[in-house]
Amino acid sequence: MRATVMYGAGDVRVEDVPDPELREPTDAVVRVLRSCICGSDLWPYGSLPPSEHGERMGHEFLGVVEDVGSEVSGLKAGDVVVAPFVWSDNTCDFCAEGLQTSCRNGGQWGHDLDGGQGEAVRVPLAQGTLVQLPVGEDDPLLSSLLTLSDVFCTGHHCAVKAGAGPRTTVTVIGDGAVGLSAVLAARRLGAERIILMGRHKDRTDLGRDFGATDVVGERGEEAVERVRELTGGDGAHSVLECVGTRPAIETALGVVRDGGVISRVGLPQYGDVPMGADAFMRNITLTGGVAPARAYIEELLPDVLEGRIDPGRLFDRTIGLDGVPDGYRAMADREALKVLIRP
Amino acid sequence: MRATVMYGAGDVRVEDVPDPELREPTDAVVRVLRSCICGSDLWPYGSLPPSEHGERMGHEFLGVVEDVGSEVSGLKAGDVVVAPFVWSDNTCDFCAEGLQTSCRNGGQWGHDLDGGQGEAVRVPLAQGTLVQLPVGEDDPLLSSLLTLSDVFCTGHHCAVKAGAGPRTTVTVIGDGAVGLSAVLAARRLGAERIILMGRHKDRTDLGRDFGATDVVGERGEEAVERVRELTGGDGAHSVLECVGTRPAIETALGVVRDGGVISRVGLPQYGDVPMGADAFMRNITLTGGVAPARAYIEELLPDVLEGRIDPGRLFDRTIGLDGVPDGYRAMADREALKVLIRP
Repeated sequence: MRATVMYGAGDVRVEDVPDPELREPTDAVVRVLRSCICGSDLWPYGSLPPSEHGERMGHEFLGVVEDVGSEVSGLKAGDVVVAPFVWSDNTCDFCAEGLQTSCRNGGQWGHDLDGGQGEAVRVPLAQGTLVQLPVGEDDPLLSSLLTLSDVFCTGHHCAVKAGAGPRTTVTVIGDGAVGLSAVLAARRLGAERIILMGRHKDRTDLGRDFGATDVVGERGEEAVERVRELTGGDGAHSVLECVGTRPAIETALGVVRDGGVISRVGLPQYGDVPMGADAFMRNITLTGGVAPARAYIEELLPDVLEGRIDPGRLFDRTIGLDGVPDGYRAMADREALKVLIRP
Repeated sequence: MRATVMYGAGDVRVEDVPDPELREPTDAVVRVLRSCICGSDLWPYGSLPPSEHGERMGHEFLGVVEDVGSEVSGLKAGDVVVAPFVWSDNTCDFCAEGLQTSCRNGGQWGHDLDGGQGEAVRVPLAQGTLVQLPVGEDDPLLSSLLTLSDVFCTGHHCAVKAGAGPRTTVTVIGDGAVGLSAVLAARRLGAERIILMGRHKDRTDLGRDFGATDVVGERGEEAVERVRELTGGDGAHSVLECVGTRPAIETALGVVRDGGVISRVGLPQYGDVPMGADAFMRNITLTGGVAPARAYIEELLPDVLEGRIDPGRLFDRTIGLDGVPDGYRAMADREALKVLIRP
């Protein structure tokens, strides 16, 4: 089959790889219907050291079960399923607590496994990992359903951990696909006011559609001042940090209200968080982390199926597998917000 | 009257100062029955730059109302009251949310105000700040009641913010008065297992009396390993960081379970917290901060009055005002755990 392999920064190729097959009785093989490129794929795209073997790419996908191992129950060939971006047994104590990203037996796609940016994937621990979807192979909701694999669940995790809800003022840092997902998730949870910090009008316009009540386009200190003005000088109860850089976390500390929560879902490109005496005296909480998408899929699914939320609007470009290298480039150049792949 | 003034590191004096009197109609004047020295007083004791005017000291006290201003209702001369270590109106939005440490009109003792380590105190916003106690001036519970001013409420805040409760394993870092308070608070909240990290046997023995189920006396990496062994390799759900140093927060990160919470109540002597990608991938939360003692006093009071908890056992030395300079020395030298003052 054909799949995406990254050989180093900027070097993405689509090439022939071995067809996936069942290896363990707990495996399934899934033919990919939809996949996409993640903002987090851009970190290795910018910095992966060159290698001869390369890295299989893609951790967001939705597809059709082609085969299941003898120990997989509840799934059969022909089922349409979505895979969260971390696979897990969904039975260990961490999974039972809703922290499937720390599953005792789980792991990440790619590396020694297939990635989602290919024609098919061998799925380990398929029964725990995959969630069946009550739709056909050409359902118009597929792109929104694909976001349950990662991006919308990540925004939701961010909003949940931040305590977004009625009577909260939320500030979302970042107008990328995760930031816009966080806006949509915060609105879904009933947040009263949602301030989106972002500077790309096409993206913040979508953010307004998703529920942002205010947009702050300034940068740095000026942006912090603007959010403070909008919140009567106090800052926001819940700050959803969807970027992952040190300036973003500094901005978060600047716009959070005393007693408030900063929830982060952007993979930190920093080692230290400046939370010394000031954050202490203000009782600021830092939470969030890699999102256990598996924990949220069933809860979010009805809202997608019934059209109450439409996170598929995040995809502003659709490509085939051959277009993947250019899809990376387009996202890195901010030409595209999020690229959908139809293998 | 006589009161404690610190003129620089190691230079604590008890001297004559002006008698407190009502200045605002919202003031009260309280004659101090019991006060104490706080672990946080040892930071300036170790590092305060010399000054001619000095700093009035003490933020934990309990006493008898001598006079109240015309706008103070619900309090009268003769009432026994306890003061939290931050004064507040107890009516603003922050106070209503239980964050009296961020009160829009409140502040800290000392500086331009009287401190608790003296014969009497002018209390601003007395109606919001003071909590009446149903005891007499010589009640044997006074020392336990005094801990509601700061140290026990601080331990309680730490445990509450950490989510300590039934089915949680708690690790408390620090065997000082706050750490031991955190142990007692975690037990009160129903924590299943409480691992106390501390190296002073007399203190950890009191910790066991307060509810610690395990004591870890090792240091650094060895201590982290020991806590991990005790928790099946996983670490603790709730880590109560009661020291405030960078090594303590590093230890906290080492002993916290994936998805767990680090709650800190030791004033940070560091500017940055090492919570980069590792803490992110493990979904670690950092919370806590300066404790809004005022928010907790009514809730904790019955347990003290009815003898279910006895945080007054933290006091292992009692002195008069003249003994205050030596009391500081004894706490700094770790000769005394916590020094009670009877002016």
